[in-house]
Amino acid sequence: MSLLVTGSIAIDTVETPSGKRADVIGGSAVYFAYAASFFAPVRLVGVVGDDCPQALLNVFDGRCVDTSGLEIRKGSKTFRWHGSYVKDLNDAETVAVNLNVLAERSPKIPEKFLDSQYVFLANTHPVLQQQTLATLASPKLVVADTMNLWIQTQREELLKLLGKIDGLVLNDGEIRLLTEKTNLIAAARDVLKMGPKFVVIKKGEHGSLLVSDRDTFVLPGFPAQQVVDPTGAGDSFAGGMMGYLATQMSLSPATIKRAMAFGTVVASFTISDFSLAGLAAVTREQIDDRWQEFKAAMSF
Amino acid sequence: MSLLVTGSIAIDTVETPSGKRADVIGGSAVYFAYAASFFAPVRLVGVVGDDCPQALLNVFDGRCVDTSGLEIRKGSKTFRWHGSYVKDLNDAETVAVNLNVLAERSPKIPEKFLDSQYVFLANTHPVLQQQTLATLASPKLVVADTMNLWIQTQREELLKLLGKIDGLVLNDGEIRLLTEKTNLIAAARDVLKMGPKFVVIKKGEHGSLLVSDRDTFVLPGFPAQQVVDPTGAGDSFAGGMMGYLATQMSLSPATIKRAMAFGTVVASFTISDFSLAGLAAVTREQIDDRWQEFKAAMSF
Repeated sequence: MSLLVTGSIAIDTVETPSGKRADVIGGSAVYFAYAASFFAPVRLVGVVGDDCPQALLNVFDGRCVDTSGLEIRKGSKTFRWHGSYVKDLNDAETVAVNLNVLAERSPKIPEKFLDSQYVFLANTHPVLQQQTLATLASPKLVVADTMNLWIQTQREELLKLLGKIDGLVLNDGEIRLLTEKTNLIAAARDVLKMGPKFVVIKKGEHGSLLVSDRDTFVLPGFPAQQVVDPTGAGDSFAGGMMGYLATQMSLSPATIKRAMAFGTVVASFTISDFSLAGLAAVTREQIDDRWQEFKAAMSF
Repeated sequence: MSLLVTGSIAIDTVETPSGKRADVIGGSAVYFAYAASFFAPVRLVGVVGDDCPQALLNVFDGRCVDTSGLEIRKGSKTFRWHGSYVKDLNDAETVAVNLNVLAERSPKIPEKFLDSQYVFLANTHPVLQQQTLATLASPKLVVADTMNLWIQTQREELLKLLGKIDGLVLNDGEIRLLTEKTNLIAAARDVLKMGPKFVVIKKGEHGSLLVSDRDTFVLPGFPAQQVVDPTGAGDSFAGGMMGYLATQMSLSPATIKRAMAFGTVVASFTISDFSLAGLAAVTREQIDDRWQEFKAAMSF
């Protein structure tokens, strides 16, 4: 089924204990789309400036990603992020950030994308997320991400968004900020009262947690032997999860659990190299093999 | 099969966001023995001073714990620990500690305990751990715990101990200190080279990890809705794990995995109340029910 993602497209500079990469492709929508495309065709909506080298956008060549929703805006500059994981692989330190084109109007969604059934609203201003959602005809599953900045400065708009989506994906720090609760299960129950039918909490190397009215599902992180660059892990997780869901007829708890395990596995490839190199080197078959390995590593 | 534990018996004062309890029973061997006794008879070896109120030691009344290895030493004082989790439920701040009797000679192991098959050397000086081990006839499974203090000050003796045991249980901070590796899988592989056949890494609320030559097993934490007092969680985990193992004929990876899940579940009851109150309120049937619930919460 059709899967739409809107979110950021970035030129990243990243420093980790394994080295430094300058001016590589990144952004939430990019990681999401690449990860999801192992499972289902993806419709990408995003905007870059005319400074963005075409070579960077060529990452989607040969993949099932429809980039007709990708706007290259003249006179604007691409979103740039410079982060460092040198001190802590679990916590990015932002060295510099330039919103650039992300601070302007949002990109237009092509008419042929308006019938999208599965929708991921990657992290951006909650007003833009609501605008995107309002233009879509009748999506079957809408999942959104958010971040500290919007929780702190756009709480009212974020709460409006939460009333309109099926699932919220966010990390442990973010949900604690949103609910002012330390215990993650208690925090998730608060979020369910705000609207979403389920909440997925990403805990980095410590795995993830799904909470719905009926279910609590806990998943450890994939036991990775080496982490080269954690950038994009959370978006890859969401991409793997939503990509798998888009191929399933069901949204049963069991299906969502399997989807989260696929998300975990895809993210484990992302962090094995810089930028998209880890994902680019992998096949769907290798993802399936690691999924089985992961399942075995936690079953008893 | 016979299960022996040696370790500390303490009078604890504990502060958490839920309140404060002064002069309650604690200590690694106490939590371990209580937790393990849900599964198998336990032989407890430890020492207290003659200041220890008998009422505290009565916690084992009616439980399958043979306390004939418990020495009440005249003229000595019981080990005391005062800790606070007020700032961080995952990290105890030691307010005060008095080794007292723990800084003296170790207690004698009763002759009738010398044939013990399953042995847990709870955290204490690695020389004492080796002495205990040397007196035992032919144990089938020897697992030890340790702590930062010994890793930093008794490294050589600790390495000798590691050459003599089957399994090492320790937390993430400790294994990083021991191996000087950040990645837990890589750190565990280093420990395997030091002697143990398997390593169990405790990650507090984030669960645990087993690494052996053949296996990697990851287990999330039990999704607890409320944590009242984390004291003894790690020792309860080890107690539940070893207690279950002592009832099994096999030491297969599958058996060890089930045992770790039992350890996780028992620890989840420990942290639901102060001192031993959480464990005292629970039945084996409730443990089995929660084990099934935990299994369901992570299976896909």
